[in-house]
Amino acid sequence: MVGVTYPKGFSATGVSCGIKKNGDKDLCLVFCENRSTAAGVFTRNIVKGHSTLLAMKNIADGYAKAVVINSGNANACLAEKGRADANKMAQIVSECCGADFSDVLTASTGVIGVPLDIVKIEEGIKKAFGLLSKDGKSAAEAIMTTDTHPKTTETEIIIDGKTIRIGGMAKGSGMIHPDMATMISVITTDAKISPKTLNKALKECVDRTFNRISVDGDTSVCDKVLLLASGLVGNEILQSTKEYGVFVSALNGVCEKLAKMLAADGEGATKLLTIKAINAKSKKDARMVTSAIAKSPLCKTAAFGKDANWGRLITAAGYSGAEFDPEMVDIYIGDVMVCRSGGGLDFDEKAALAILEKDEIEYIIDLKSGNESDTMWTCDLTYDYVRINGEYRT
Amino acid sequence: MVGVTYPKGFSATGVSCGIKKNGDKDLCLVFCENRSTAAGVFTRNIVKGHSTLLAMKNIADGYAKAVVINSGNANACLAEKGRADANKMAQIVSECCGADFSDVLTASTGVIGVPLDIVKIEEGIKKAFGLLSKDGKSAAEAIMTTDTHPKTTETEIIIDGKTIRIGGMAKGSGMIHPDMATMISVITTDAKISPKTLNKALKECVDRTFNRISVDGDTSVCDKVLLLASGLVGNEILQSTKEYGVFVSALNGVCEKLAKMLAADGEGATKLLTIKAINAKSKKDARMVTSAIAKSPLCKTAAFGKDANWGRLITAAGYSGAEFDPEMVDIYIGDVMVCRSGGGLDFDEKAALAILEKDEIEYIIDLKSGNESDTMWTCDLTYDYVRINGEYRT
Repeated sequence: MVGVTYPKGFSATGVSCGIKKNGDKDLCLVFCENRSTAAGVFTRNIVKGHSTLLAMKNIADGYAKAVVINSGNANACLAEKGRADANKMAQIVSECCGADFSDVLTASTGVIGVPLDIVKIEEGIKKAFGLLSKDGKSAAEAIMTTDTHPKTTETEIIIDGKTIRIGGMAKGSGMIHPDMATMISVITTDAKISPKTLNKALKECVDRTFNRISVDGDTSVCDKVLLLASGLVGNEILQSTKEYGVFVSALNGVCEKLAKMLAADGEGATKLLTIKAINAKSKKDARMVTSAIAKSPLCKTAAFGKDANWGRLITAAGYSGAEFDPEMVDIYIGDVMVCRSGGGLDFDEKAALAILEKDEIEYIIDLKSGNESDTMWTCDLTYDYVRINGEYRT
Repeated sequence: MVGVTYPKGFSATGVSCGIKKNGDKDLCLVFCENRSTAAGVFTRNIVKGHSTLLAMKNIADGYAKAVVINSGNANACLAEKGRADANKMAQIVSECCGADFSDVLTASTGVIGVPLDIVKIEEGIKKAFGLLSKDGKSAAEAIMTTDTHPKTTETEIIIDGKTIRIGGMAKGSGMIHPDMATMISVITTDAKISPKTLNKALKECVDRTFNRISVDGDTSVCDKVLLLASGLVGNEILQSTKEYGVFVSALNGVCEKLAKMLAADGEGATKLLTIKAINAKSKKDARMVTSAIAKSPLCKTAAFGKDANWGRLITAAGYSGAEFDPEMVDIYIGDVMVCRSGGGLDFDEKAALAILEKDEIEYIIDLKSGNESDTMWTCDLTYDYVRINGEYRT
């Protein structure tokens, strides 16, 4: 397991500094030996954590050298102390590695409104600097909250005979929804690419991947995807070149893999659900349909119950706001057609059950009103979601 | 327990006709001895059940004499057979009571996409006509799906020395959300009131009551509130008179009581949650805040877990789309202030727990940005919600 340390120039680690009461790793550092170009996508929640606000400020110039993330505490809704603690986190990292303050990106995830123990964070950062390595696993572990396992992926592409690597890690797994949820992802590459082009590439990919997953429809105050490019390999990748397309396609693959891992490991999840709306009148209509289904507690509990209850799918599509003729709609659960032209079919319940018993289920809603489509990933809603979130803070 | 039969002129009953496999009551008739003025509010879901579509058509002229409702089957997404069955239901009622076909209002609630056994419905309607009485309880029982108890209420007001009665019944309890969910309510009155004025009064009240409850954010294909006025008591109530205000206030009380009963008996609920947004910049902002909180699985599981996790409340407010300054917000759980000016307080956890252990909890979000407010009612999200909806159809 490598993740963010896969591309040239990056090292990382995760340590325990005592923020999490159970002693699990809770402080992560990602470090680049040179100054990287950097891009980020941040939560659209108007309530933003103090670490998030500082990261937004520090990434604005398009460059970064280090990312510091603590888990177990969101450093949010804490007024002056929250702002001071975010600054302090960045300052300690800056002093440790000799980077400019503005080249440190901060992130915090966990409970809201509880003051951060900055003394522990300081000790953690100093310890982490001594342990930086090419193993990205401990870094991925240290950003987990209710995740059941660390999430990393990596890929490589050859451009002009040179191997360019992309690696990433991410954490979920509640408050997941388009426009960034309680998720954090850090992606690295050794491609040489300008801040502007990097930013465009990241936005394109996030829009198709991290913004198409939903666990519970809640979006949090801490969510972000950060992308750092060390530039240690390859010719410059420009937006106008064929190489740009190759790069974006590889980056999209990394984002999609991480996004699906987040959905599959949604709080309490037993299944990854892929929701496809096809032949919609517009992209917006397609997205409204997939979003409504991916957010619907009724659709999600039916998946948990292995129930081929397609009535809930067409109902969610119906209130989604999308324009379509209900009497045209076909619905498939896996490859079993359960509804044709808006009417229920006497389908093979056994065949449907066999599909619903799998870990990954695909629902297809064919609106037969146009040529646009959308895909979203979510998970089922289970007893464990209620248990995890009924007990989270207490 | 009286409900819809409280006002003069109305009788009702509920019988078992075999649609529900467990033998529970599943066919309800409400009958008015004269032709009532009638108003209705219907689901905005573009997928509408066949019985709903027929009721919309038949109420368009502003008059009705009978309401027939079956539970256990939504008569939805069934193409020609669904349309024919809705027509047949109305036709049988029309023949039994000598009312015009267009004075019969149909409703069906239950599973979607399964053909209705119209032979059983016919037998049920004939049986029900022989049992019409002034006891509204069996009628309220026969419209239940996953409700745990029947819901009725009644009130009376004196206008010009004459006693005017209003009675109502309602069923929930999943797919509950503003703009009508999988709920059905029938309200009756013996006031004399024109179709136009009745319609206006109903819309006003529904907007403040049934449209301010949420169980899971899903809205169904069958939802409606019907209001019938027999006119057997009192002078005509006109929109321009003081009496109109008195009538609307009483009607609002009936709607609010039923709406709160639906929220409190939401699927699997253990608690009724009242969400108040106060001092918002606009009514729309206030509504966005209460809606986001009322829909948030994270806020709802925290209530189930008796967790004073106010961070989830401010988070939901933050992504709601409402405009406000996060650093102005005060939050109260009951009378315990937990957040001041967007920052967490070191509040008395024991006092908060004492509030959270009650059956009814009030959250107040003071946005301090204006003078508008909104109230919504919802319930907690529990293991039983998952159990009920994971097992519904199977």
